[in-house]
Amino acid sequence: MNQGSSLLTKPSQSPFRTRLQNALERAGTCLCVGLDPDPLRFPEVVCAANPDVEDQIVSFNAAIINATAGVAASYKLNLAFYELHGERGWRAMERTLALVPEGVITIADAKRGDIGNTARFYAQAFFEAMSFDAITLSPYMGSDSVAPFLEHPDKAVFLLCRTSNRSADDLQLHGGQKPLFLEVASRANHWDSEYAGAAGLVVGATRTADVKAVRAASPTLPLLIPGVGAQGGDAAATVRCGWTTDGAILVNSSRSILYASADEDFAEAAGVEARRLAALLSRPGQPA
Amino acid sequence: MNQGSSLLTKPSQSPFRTRLQNALERAGTCLCVGLDPDPLRFPEVVCAANPDVEDQIVSFNAAIINATAGVAASYKLNLAFYELHGERGWRAMERTLALVPEGVITIADAKRGDIGNTARFYAQAFFEAMSFDAITLSPYMGSDSVAPFLEHPDKAVFLLCRTSNRSADDLQLHGGQKPLFLEVASRANHWDSEYAGAAGLVVGATRTADVKAVRAASPTLPLLIPGVGAQGGDAAATVRCGWTTDGAILVNSSRSILYASADEDFAEAAGVEARRLAALLSRPGQPA
Repeated sequence: MNQGSSLLTKPSQSPFRTRLQNALERAGTCLCVGLDPDPLRFPEVVCAANPDVEDQIVSFNAAIINATAGVAASYKLNLAFYELHGERGWRAMERTLALVPEGVITIADAKRGDIGNTARFYAQAFFEAMSFDAITLSPYMGSDSVAPFLEHPDKAVFLLCRTSNRSADDLQLHGGQKPLFLEVASRANHWDSEYAGAAGLVVGATRTADVKAVRAASPTLPLLIPGVGAQGGDAAATVRCGWTTDGAILVNSSRSILYASADEDFAEAAGVEARRLAALLSRPGQPA
Repeated sequence: MNQGSSLLTKPSQSPFRTRLQNALERAGTCLCVGLDPDPLRFPEVVCAANPDVEDQIVSFNAAIINATAGVAASYKLNLAFYELHGERGWRAMERTLALVPEGVITIADAKRGDIGNTARFYAQAFFEAMSFDAITLSPYMGSDSVAPFLEHPDKAVFLLCRTSNRSADDLQLHGGQKPLFLEVASRANHWDSEYAGAAGLVVGATRTADVKAVRAASPTLPLLIPGVGAQGGDAAATVRCGWTTDGAILVNSSRSILYASADEDFAEAAGVEARRLAALLSRPGQPA
């Protein structure tokens, strides 16, 4: 009830949104670099210098962060790439997080989604024990699974909304005309207005029309947009549809940056690719 | 296309289903004990003997497993309770897994859901680096996010279907008459028939009518049913609706067993509560 008025009374800038705004301005672009380290793809030089997988990951990530920090508004750590290595991977994630420069947004790409009791533990793990600024969540279980994260006023959740994978349609239309992702967008608007923390949405870059539809449904929510780079989404088109005066976006690329070169010059090549993408991802109407 | 015939040609017993069947027969009940260790609720005796949280968790879990193994067909580890403690929690999870007796089904309650590349890494983490028999997943992203798990012939996925939390309805009816969870059940039937691994469904015990509806929609899929015990679901009614000749179930209880007593007798009390629940959860038509 009375959701219209709660939408009006919510301060337009949650602490997270202010921080995101500052990160975007500092970087001059909405580039999010995905730190998805796969030791099988690491250059020989990284493996030779570090016998332990934990050190390999940290060393690789440190070089990537160093090469890209000038143009990265955000770093996103895909948890699967760390959990695969058990406790070593977990330590590598914590050490990586500590390397991200102050002011740059950090996202735990966890895609968790569980109920109250469990969600509270996850929120504590990612927002307190570790200091991620935001986490990706699956909205399947509804508000109970999102609220414990949104109770953290300076943090954000990015809810899976319109994903870019081949089977994304499997559950989108199951007996009605309104796709599920527009229902998620509409719920997210309300959750964002009801809680102190910020709600955002994950929308794949390979579906430009859907980025537009989600932006229309949620004019002010931050959008996290994967799928530029290796997955083939058009960066410039994504920025034009998604990034508005009121609505920020972060556009993620992982593999195209991390593995731009498989040789000793991997960090330099990552920097070049990050700057190339960053130029395409500058604010619409601004010089690249 | 041709889904009918693939349903017919699938061998009725995947290795996982055979293993589940054996575990149910051995235990004589469908009880799944949820190992959700919360050190804040541990008896003083556990904390005093173990200064480190990792050892506290392992010691607590060891006592619970020891007290309940006679009647547990399965143990389910809720990942949030381990991840909260970072690398120590991760080690505690691996050490706990090693304590589960041979032949008892182990489930990683992870509720992950991500696309191909990432899903493959999660499958490797939970099914190879660790040796869980099954994992819970969110179906939001469709088949791409499930297939890499189902390619493991001796493993199973339990897909979130009808959950028992307050906001479970948020996304269930968004423009049609068919609730989302019945679409998930129908997809799961096909995924189970298309892949070597087994597909199952998570259905909350507090919604008996929905357990019945899901069982009707998916007559042969194993159901993982949380919500008995602390969450208030009726164990006996759940068994009557869910457990059929062709369709197995696992009914999970966590807190009511783990924290049956807060004193030194916690393990004994856990054993008593587990046996009480196990008697309610014996096969329909069999003496308790």
